[in-house]
Amino acid sequence: MQKGKLTLVGAGPGDPDLITLKAIKALERADVILYDALVNPDLLHYAKDGAKHVFVGKRCGKHSVPQEEINELIVKYALEGNDVVRLKCGDPFIFARGKEEIEYAENFGIKSEIVVGISSINLLGHYNIPITRRGINESFWVITAVTKEKKLSKDLDLAAQSNATCIILMGLRRIEEILAKFNEAGKANVSAAVISKGSHDDGKLLLGNVGNLAEKVESSDVKAPAIIVVGDVVSTHPDFAKLMKEEGYL
Amino acid sequence: MQKGKLTLVGAGPGDPDLITLKAIKALERADVILYDALVNPDLLHYAKDGAKHVFVGKRCGKHSVPQEEINELIVKYALEGNDVVRLKCGDPFIFARGKEEIEYAENFGIKSEIVVGISSINLLGHYNIPITRRGINESFWVITAVTKEKKLSKDLDLAAQSNATCIILMGLRRIEEILAKFNEAGKANVSAAVISKGSHDDGKLLLGNVGNLAEKVESSDVKAPAIIVVGDVVSTHPDFAKLMKEEGYL
Repeated sequence: MQKGKLTLVGAGPGDPDLITLKAIKALERADVILYDALVNPDLLHYAKDGAKHVFVGKRCGKHSVPQEEINELIVKYALEGNDVVRLKCGDPFIFARGKEEIEYAENFGIKSEIVVGISSINLLGHYNIPITRRGINESFWVITAVTKEKKLSKDLDLAAQSNATCIILMGLRRIEEILAKFNEAGKANVSAAVISKGSHDDGKLLLGNVGNLAEKVESSDVKAPAIIVVGDVVSTHPDFAKLMKEEGYL
Repeated sequence: MQKGKLTLVGAGPGDPDLITLKAIKALERADVILYDALVNPDLLHYAKDGAKHVFVGKRCGKHSVPQEEINELIVKYALEGNDVVRLKCGDPFIFARGKEEIEYAENFGIKSEIVVGISSINLLGHYNIPITRRGINESFWVITAVTKEKKLSKDLDLAAQSNATCIILMGLRRIEEILAKFNEAGKANVSAAVISKGSHDDGKLLLGNVGNLAEKVESSDVKAPAIIVVGDVVSTHPDFAKLMKEEGYL
């Protein structure tokens, strides 16, 4: 039997229209689709009749399928001759362990392809905050908040001292500790935001600054997954000045 | 007459299949499309019959349309009642002056919408280099190499000391100076790459390290636009180990 192949496909950040044409074409030809919890289920409608849909994500209260098991499922289906699509939210090569899945498959001689996707970092644009703005900043730094040892990433210390727009992923639960680092760097008045639930219908934007954002999150109903943004670009949001005025900051 | 509106649309990094469904829908309903030089012209085929296509990019030897003039064109067409799409390569809110265009239009009461796009930073994935890899790095830092005063961005100094994957845009002509900063930070042996011409058909990947990449660029035919990548993730490229061995590094 001929071996199948593996295509890692980025599903984008939630809005089913934020998927690429290339991703749709991969879904249309797939025999098996292994998909994550945060992937919009509407995207499975692109699959052909008879294609197998395999959920491998985490659901509340239940454990997720361990990475090792996902790796093994990919190999099993590909060795059976299937065209396997591994559909991951965002971009498969940005904090998504996509490379690990490809390397595992390659050990079994399975060829792979990558279809990049819109990452959750692009959600700033979706919420009318530019990631960069001429005259404000020349760079942005994207950091996963917590290491696999459950510690805050050391990169946050250097990031707090930089002039980059800082985009911090998976950090909502530890937002107080994270913003404290920026506070210590003298940035209490720098504008900051939380974007919760990506481009899904119940997505939310919370505007504030380094000094008050953790408290605002505490008294709100924003939920993970969320990204934290720190940087003066946040203050260019059309509602920002009005909000700060109302709150007595300006 | 009713005012038209402005939609800033990300065209993606070159490959016409790396555009989103949402972008295609915006192109289909547009009355006027203002597009940049690096936008794949195939994308204009999505426009409806009778839509006006206006080229506002730079071509070799000729000056580009100044930003002020682009801003005025957007406003002119929108005030005439047109649905105006501003089609920009990559993502309109990542180093693309998209926010400036929106703010200018808003001064005339023109409503705007943003359709985010695949950025050139995603090209690492397109070339089988993960932007992040568990166990290797916890962040990535994207920097535009040169400020509007034609100086190297100061952010590069801090970036050279960080553990982030550094992705440097618009820096090919000054790659020697840029890599010198990483060299001074003791990173001569850190893997590095140049990706030239994005996801266009003549795109190229050049692998090396901080110590030798500038020389490799010098003796190659890679051309701008290009991105420079510095970080251990580059060494996970399937060809990397073999190449370094051939060159006597491993």
